[in-house]
Amino acid sequence: MANLFDDLVTPDGTERFDELLARPGAVIERIVSTGQATPPDAPYDQAWDEWVLLISGAARLWLDGAGEVPLAPGDHVLIPAYCRHRVLWTQAEPPTVWLAVHFR
Amino acid sequence: MANLFDDLVTPDGTERFDELLARPGAVIERIVSTGQATPPDAPYDQAWDEWVLLISGAARLWLDGAGEVPLAPGDHVLIPAYCRHRVLWTQAEPPTVWLAVHFR
Repeated sequence: MANLFDDLVTPDGTERFDELLARPGAVIERIVSTGQATPPDAPYDQAWDEWVLLISGAARLWLDGAGEVPLAPGDHVLIPAYCRHRVLWTQAEPPTVWLAVHFR
Repeated sequence: MANLFDDLVTPDGTERFDELLARPGAVIERIVSTGQATPPDAPYDQAWDEWVLLISGAARLWLDGAGEVPLAPGDHVLIPAYCRHRVLWTQAEPPTVWLAVHFR
C-alpha cells in the first residue's frame, strides 16, 4: 500500500507527475505542484476528458469558456477533451497535491 | 464545481455512495462511511478492478490474501477483480470519506 503524501518533493524542485495506476480507459495520476503554473502561451489542450481533485494545498485554474476557477481541498472539476486550460497558480508550501484521472 | 466534502450525511445515517463521473472504462465514486462495516458473511466480490483512496477519517479493510489493511488519509490500494474484500471498520465521526475508481 502507498500513500498519496509520500515522496512529494523532487530533488530539483520541479513539478512532479506520478502515474499511480493505468487501465484500459483510465489513468490515475498524482501531481505535486510547488508554485508552478502553465505558460500563458502554452495551455494544455488534450484529446481526452480529465477529472481533477485538489487533495491539499490550493490552486487556480483557467478553463476556456469557464474562466478562472479557484480550487481548495476537496474541490473537483471535469476538464472536457479539447477544453484549453491552464494552471494559473499553485501553492508552493506546503505543496499542492492533485489527483487526476485521465480518460484515455 | 463541486467539493468532495459537500453533503456528507444522509438523513437516515446510512453509508452514502455518490457517482461523481462515469466514462467508458471507469466510474469515479465518493463513499461516505459513518461506522459501517461489511457483514462477515457477505464480502464484496466484484468482476472489476477497484482503486480506493482514503480521503479523510480512518478505516480497516480486509483483502483476501493480504489480510487486514489499516487505512489513513492518503492511503490508496488496488482491489483486484475477484479479490474478496470487506470493510472491517470505519471511523464514524468525523465521517470517513473515500474516493473509489471502478474500472468497469
